[in-house]
Amino acid sequence: MQLTETHRPTLDRALEAIRSREYWSPHSEHPKAYGETGAADGLAAYQALLGTRFELDQPGTDGWTGGEVSPYGPELGIEYPHPDIEVLLPAMRAGMAAWREAGPETRALVCLEILARISARTHEFAHAVMHTSGQAFMMAFQAGGPHAQDRGLEAVTYAYEEQTRTPQSADWSKPQGKRDPLELRKVFTAAPRGIALLIGCNTFPTWNGYPGLFASLATGNPVLVKPHPRAVLPLALTVRIAREVLSEAGFDPNLVALAAESPGEGIAKTLAVRPEIRIIDYTGSTAFGDWLEANARQAQVYTEKAGVNTVVIDSTGDYKGMLSNLAFSLSLYSGQMCTTPQNLLIPRDGITTDAGPKSYDEVVADIAASVSGLLGDDARANALLGALVNPDVRARLDGAAALGEVALPSREVVNPDFPDAVVRTPVIVKLDGARKYWEGADEEASFMSECFGPVSFAVAVDSTTDALDLLRRTVREKGAMTVGAYTTSAEAERAVEEVCLEESAQLSLNLTGGVYVNQTAAFSDFHGSGGNPAANAALCDGAFVSNRFRMVEIRRQA
Amino acid sequence: MQLTETHRPTLDRALEAIRSREYWSPHSEHPKAYGETGAADGLAAYQALLGTRFELDQPGTDGWTGGEVSPYGPELGIEYPHPDIEVLLPAMRAGMAAWREAGPETRALVCLEILARISARTHEFAHAVMHTSGQAFMMAFQAGGPHAQDRGLEAVTYAYEEQTRTPQSADWSKPQGKRDPLELRKVFTAAPRGIALLIGCNTFPTWNGYPGLFASLATGNPVLVKPHPRAVLPLALTVRIAREVLSEAGFDPNLVALAAESPGEGIAKTLAVRPEIRIIDYTGSTAFGDWLEANARQAQVYTEKAGVNTVVIDSTGDYKGMLSNLAFSLSLYSGQMCTTPQNLLIPRDGITTDAGPKSYDEVVADIAASVSGLLGDDARANALLGALVNPDVRARLDGAAALGEVALPSREVVNPDFPDAVVRTPVIVKLDGARKYWEGADEEASFMSECFGPVSFAVAVDSTTDALDLLRRTVREKGAMTVGAYTTSAEAERAVEEVCLEESAQLSLNLTGGVYVNQTAAFSDFHGSGGNPAANAALCDGAFVSNRFRMVEIRRQA
Repeated sequence: MQLTETHRPTLDRALEAIRSREYWSPHSEHPKAYGETGAADGLAAYQALLGTRFELDQPGTDGWTGGEVSPYGPELGIEYPHPDIEVLLPAMRAGMAAWREAGPETRALVCLEILARISARTHEFAHAVMHTSGQAFMMAFQAGGPHAQDRGLEAVTYAYEEQTRTPQSADWSKPQGKRDPLELRKVFTAAPRGIALLIGCNTFPTWNGYPGLFASLATGNPVLVKPHPRAVLPLALTVRIAREVLSEAGFDPNLVALAAESPGEGIAKTLAVRPEIRIIDYTGSTAFGDWLEANARQAQVYTEKAGVNTVVIDSTGDYKGMLSNLAFSLSLYSGQMCTTPQNLLIPRDGITTDAGPKSYDEVVADIAASVSGLLGDDARANALLGALVNPDVRARLDGAAALGEVALPSREVVNPDFPDAVVRTPVIVKLDGARKYWEGADEEASFMSECFGPVSFAVAVDSTTDALDLLRRTVREKGAMTVGAYTTSAEAERAVEEVCLEESAQLSLNLTGGVYVNQTAAFSDFHGSGGNPAANAALCDGAFVSNRFRMVEIRRQA
Repeated sequence: MQLTETHRPTLDRALEAIRSREYWSPHSEHPKAYGETGAADGLAAYQALLGTRFELDQPGTDGWTGGEVSPYGPELGIEYPHPDIEVLLPAMRAGMAAWREAGPETRALVCLEILARISARTHEFAHAVMHTSGQAFMMAFQAGGPHAQDRGLEAVTYAYEEQTRTPQSADWSKPQGKRDPLELRKVFTAAPRGIALLIGCNTFPTWNGYPGLFASLATGNPVLVKPHPRAVLPLALTVRIAREVLSEAGFDPNLVALAAESPGEGIAKTLAVRPEIRIIDYTGSTAFGDWLEANARQAQVYTEKAGVNTVVIDSTGDYKGMLSNLAFSLSLYSGQMCTTPQNLLIPRDGITTDAGPKSYDEVVADIAASVSGLLGDDARANALLGALVNPDVRARLDGAAALGEVALPSREVVNPDFPDAVVRTPVIVKLDGARKYWEGADEEASFMSECFGPVSFAVAVDSTTDALDLLRRTVREKGAMTVGAYTTSAEAERAVEEVCLEESAQLSLNLTGGVYVNQTAAFSDFHGSGGNPAANAALCDGAFVSNRFRMVEIRRQA
């Protein structure tokens, strides 16, 4: 493989990008950019996988397991190897020394080759992501393809930069006055921690999985991929490609392996406390994330858990833009993003806008109308909403109407291509956000918990000051992946910035165009902050990579 | 203050140093470099502190506490303010926003000014460190002065570099084909986590304290300094200087405060779980370090705990050099360094050397003779050994003779200047290191536990292969701050390197001159690896600083 010629320029450009944080991506978002037959080939490749055994040729396979059912209805019928971890884990360690000795640059370039081959099969991945996450095709294509590949490349880039901050060797000479200097020859090696465990999620198997996978692999660690049982295929394809590339590049393919689980096995819990597992990346529920942080003490644990995302609506100079921006944010993937706003904090006495003053009721009604307008056409609604990922989301949605006055009821949308898909528009529920509902120690207001799915709360607060206090409390106690705010007041803007700086929350201000609070772009935006309870790490920064390896020094007299 | 003119060149030079890892230090090791009257002035300044109240003018002082007794005998008679933490903690947060807004460069330069003022008072600090740690004067001067200042500066340098990897702002413009590009203005702010707690140690109050203190302060966090009750003075002086500089630079002096504790109060345990405390740096026992890691879940916890340091003796091309190098390493500060070798693994059948083959007994006898020779003169012994830091060390030393055959008994040395000082030469005890003593699950061999103080074990192993297996097991299970090895065999060298790379231990090979396994130099050597149980962090690397702040992004439509 001509790794250097092919990929070094991309790595250099990526290193520039993470320093400038200007827009950049080597992965096209346009389906047509993948060749004339790209779309048809990708669909055919996906279809060829259905109803088959997904062979991986990894050691220690003691059975086959599967059972994925598309949120769009069809059973995938794919079986994956089930691991005997007593065989697989030792096999994964066998290639570690050679992978370590290869050094940071070779590891980065091998990772880039893996990503390039994934990229070439973006259409195939799009179908795999769509039929495991329930994302609509275009979103599965973009978020599951180029955006996920970007995040993987970003992680490789940070990992490379971090490992090469220290030189490979140094000659150290300390003057001793008239005597000879003290001299040492020092060699520095980025040494991996051990096997990394990636625990994948249902909604974004590649986007949330690639950062940890590639950060660990690029820093020299074998990676065991434990996908969500409902979203195995995208990560199984990833593992297969990684193994092929590793093998072709002369490394042990067992540096990357799959751990598909039997129904109800809970293999993540078993694996997480194994002494061989030294790094864990996890996206999912707060309960299991907290359990991992408390119990997997032998490992570095990186978690993205739940949060309660807030948008503070104080005032706006572009009322129409705000409404349509919010409507899109609430609708995209039926609100099943960790970054979707949940609580819209609106002053009870209304807000000022470029279209005149608007009462609380008017603002809520206008947001509801904007969502209805956006999703009025079923074809467009299907393309934006995708399908509900699992019955829990549907149950939460069904229960939300009872929590308060419904400003916008959820609507069932029929998907003509997939009649079994459960497609729903978001519900918006009005709630009273007076201080008494959240200031006490025993607050139990609905809006203080995450209600994952297409559910938003229009929370009436007494003032913007109250909104900011509630925002602070929400971020501090419940966490937040995103915060949004609309204001024309310099004072209010400064105040919301201060809350976000103090509570470590990522803030989007006055978004009224084609960028949404729930979207982040690799190489430029940080996803999460790692400084509030929603996540203990950010994608992607130095802290995300710097503890996945240790710098081991060997010094000898010169 | 002309911070930029004065300190920016030093910061730039330090940034170069951590990248090249060549020798560099701006702090002189020579007592005479501190001015003609430096020594006398420093002694006088130290003496003027004795028997006084150490005023700090920090909020929430509810009493006075003290009781330090020099390991050399005299009571210091100094009283320090005792904090009411309900008052002090909120006061420490008051200046956070301004300190955050100052940005990474100003914070770094203010830290450099603090270090410069500490450096100017190195003689005074030397006496303070000597009479709290028991280090001999010259060591207290160098390790407690310039070397500690180097480590503090190194931490500031890493902190500055880490925070400035991300630009302060970026203009992001994403092409949209024929439509206008999507444009965002993004501002990135290094946001502190909250109050950092430094829990100081008895033996190296400044050297082990400065990295955490300065890393936290430079990343925007207030720092509460909780010194070891027997080693308050060096850190109290540090806090006073930091408060002066902060105040003069226009910041709130309460960004750095002292938490001296009443006898038996255990204030560290109380502070460690306070919600305001978001970062903890700790050097000390494994038991309390483990407790912190398990219980201070609201904080980032950086610990340096205990380890069992090993030297593998396989063969040598400079027998005399090896003997004298080892003798010095075992003797320096009576073995009371976390880096002092404890277990000398020597093949039962002897080793090959440039002076012919040497049996196990000969090697042990020759090491013993070398130590005796080094410490034969009482003046030299006092200058090297210092005093035992506390009665526990003495008890362990006294108990060691019963563990096996004594190859070198400990000798009591009289210190004519300080007749009450407890000065002892190291004991060397022969132990059998056959596999049966350490391979089982319930091994209880003396050499498998840390015996902190002037106690070394000459462990007879069946082969170098056995030595390496024992080394691996020791590092993996007990941790190690340092590993040393002597060998002329390329194969053995490669094998010990492999163990250290796999178990994340810092290795010194064939040291026979004036550099010792227990010494590390800032800007070049890593102290600990953070990858084995002896410490969860290394001094100093990216991981030591990157999670003390979070990068908060505020983005708005352009």
